[in-house]
Amino acid sequence: MTTETVVRLPETTDVEAAAQTLDGHAITTPLVESEFLNERAGARVLVKAECLQRTGSFKYRGAFNRLSRLDDAARRRGVVAFPRGNHVFGVAGAARDLDIPATIVLADDDPPWKIAVCRAYRAEVVLFERKNEDWAELNRQLEALGVRVADERGATIIRPYDDAEVTAGHGTVGLEIVTQARAMDARLDAVLVPCARGGLCAGVALAVSAASPDTEILAVEPVGFDDTARSLAAGALLSNEDGAQSICDGLLSPSQGELNFALNQRFVAGGLVVSDTETLKAMKAAFSDLKLVAEPSGAIGLGAILGGIFDARGKTVCVICSGGNVDSATFRSALGTEP
Amino acid sequence: MTTETVVRLPETTDVEAAAQTLDGHAITTPLVESEFLNERAGARVLVKAECLQRTGSFKYRGAFNRLSRLDDAARRRGVVAFPRGNHVFGVAGAARDLDIPATIVLADDDPPWKIAVCRAYRAEVVLFERKNEDWAELNRQLEALGVRVADERGATIIRPYDDAEVTAGHGTVGLEIVTQARAMDARLDAVLVPCARGGLCAGVALAVSAASPDTEILAVEPVGFDDTARSLAAGALLSNEDGAQSICDGLLSPSQGELNFALNQRFVAGGLVVSDTETLKAMKAAFSDLKLVAEPSGAIGLGAILGGIFDARGKTVCVICSGGNVDSATFRSALGTEP
Repeated sequence: MTTETVVRLPETTDVEAAAQTLDGHAITTPLVESEFLNERAGARVLVKAECLQRTGSFKYRGAFNRLSRLDDAARRRGVVAFPRGNHVFGVAGAARDLDIPATIVLADDDPPWKIAVCRAYRAEVVLFERKNEDWAELNRQLEALGVRVADERGATIIRPYDDAEVTAGHGTVGLEIVTQARAMDARLDAVLVPCARGGLCAGVALAVSAASPDTEILAVEPVGFDDTARSLAAGALLSNEDGAQSICDGLLSPSQGELNFALNQRFVAGGLVVSDTETLKAMKAAFSDLKLVAEPSGAIGLGAILGGIFDARGKTVCVICSGGNVDSATFRSALGTEP
Repeated sequence: MTTETVVRLPETTDVEAAAQTLDGHAITTPLVESEFLNERAGARVLVKAECLQRTGSFKYRGAFNRLSRLDDAARRRGVVAFPRGNHVFGVAGAARDLDIPATIVLADDDPPWKIAVCRAYRAEVVLFERKNEDWAELNRQLEALGVRVADERGATIIRPYDDAEVTAGHGTVGLEIVTQARAMDARLDAVLVPCARGGLCAGVALAVSAASPDTEILAVEPVGFDDTARSLAAGALLSNEDGAQSICDGLLSPSQGELNFALNQRFVAGGLVVSDTETLKAMKAAFSDLKLVAEPSGAIGLGAILGGIFDARGKTVCVICSGGNVDSATFRSALGTEP
């Protein structure tokens, strides 16, 4: 972990400060529901549509909050981000909005549209030449290259997890959920949060446990990446085996971040593990019943409910649709699944 | 036209009253934008996401407003709606929410999901046995059956157009657009409205022309159904030829309603005519850049901009994404189009 990371546990007050920082910049995304989904689930299901967030996912919140707190000298030297997926979109988009130069490290076999999106946000893209690495090894290689690039440029590395200001920014999702649910006369029994490194989960848990202490927080993971479920059950930070695969490309992490796990151990009741088949069905349900484009990682919470992995019957449950960045081929295959 | 229809021109005050009636019932749908869309259009494009409205389209607004104004006796006798598409969903959904029995007349070859949706809203569905009628003849037949059913039951026919309270309900879309655009520091040069019978267009025009008089209102229609464009140019109510086809299943009407045309002649600057190819591309753009599911009729305004039919360059333009009720086969074909 580099010294640039804000290495401390975030507090509820950090989330409240982040909400002020994000005001007028991030979108207060709607909390939506569908009577058809409710009927299928036998529950009231409220979906937090972070797919409608700037850059297509919640990651903008953490990135914007973090970047806003850089001093002028650091802003001029710029920022670097490297793990793939929505984090780099969030950093590139927030950096563009704050007029900070951003460098994004991607693998050369990343889908061309991901590279194009980063460039559209005016980030410089540095491509890593991939040679058959599995995702875990690739992530290590991307990180090594990212650190080198940052050192050369004196730039600040913006990590997607274990950074207090990033986590606090993500936590604003939780603040909004509580406020919006109250406005809808909904008393939340549970919030289901997609979970990889654990930053969204930790931020949301921090915010929701303070504002709505009776609400249970649950982490949702794809099959093969159930380290959070196992870690929470074991009371120790466990990892996933290398080599697993899932369509949930936003949730392919070896383990939780240490600081995130410290928070999640305190606040999160347990983990739910969802197959890709259920996730694809949930993407189709979001399409037909909510008119929302959910990426696989964004639909996984809904998959936990519709697939019966979480017994929502009779409850009021919020699922966070964390993002909508999905290519059309994957989305077409989701629409081809049987309901 | 039956006596049940509220046959008078709606006024701005009707739209304001409708906004009060809909408060807490209809969703204040978000006004969204994407820098990628803006860049492609060379304009600021604000999309009013009525696909996120209850029942999946703006039609809920007019239906709820109209049904709310029925007296107790009329509520007990119930309502009937017959043209296909989003209007019947809106009536069925609003009737369910207001605890009013609804009967929906559909053709027996309507897609099963449309029939299922009406039934899910607890409406009684009466099926018309279709025998090779083209859409215009079919609409006449559905209307004849609908009138008969309503007469038998003493029920009130809820028409999708030329009903002052329905039009006023739709006009609340326009009120919200003006308020939301101001909150986004956007000075609207134009609002593009999908147009068939002309009710959404008339309602929005009424609201926007009062609240933002410098904003131009334009009607958008599919190729083969350009009666509004021609009628406005000719200064007389013209019809479409029978037999035309379009994927915009919400916009297949023979002509504007007379009362709607009276309003639209006063307020609407002209018509824009969009090919299905451009509409499919716009559906894909809404998917990738807005994370929204737009039905063809809901994407047509965006198609007018991205296809260059409306020269938006340098302007701030709102397009109304009127609905998101589209089957997965059509959506998959939209995602298969080249950008």
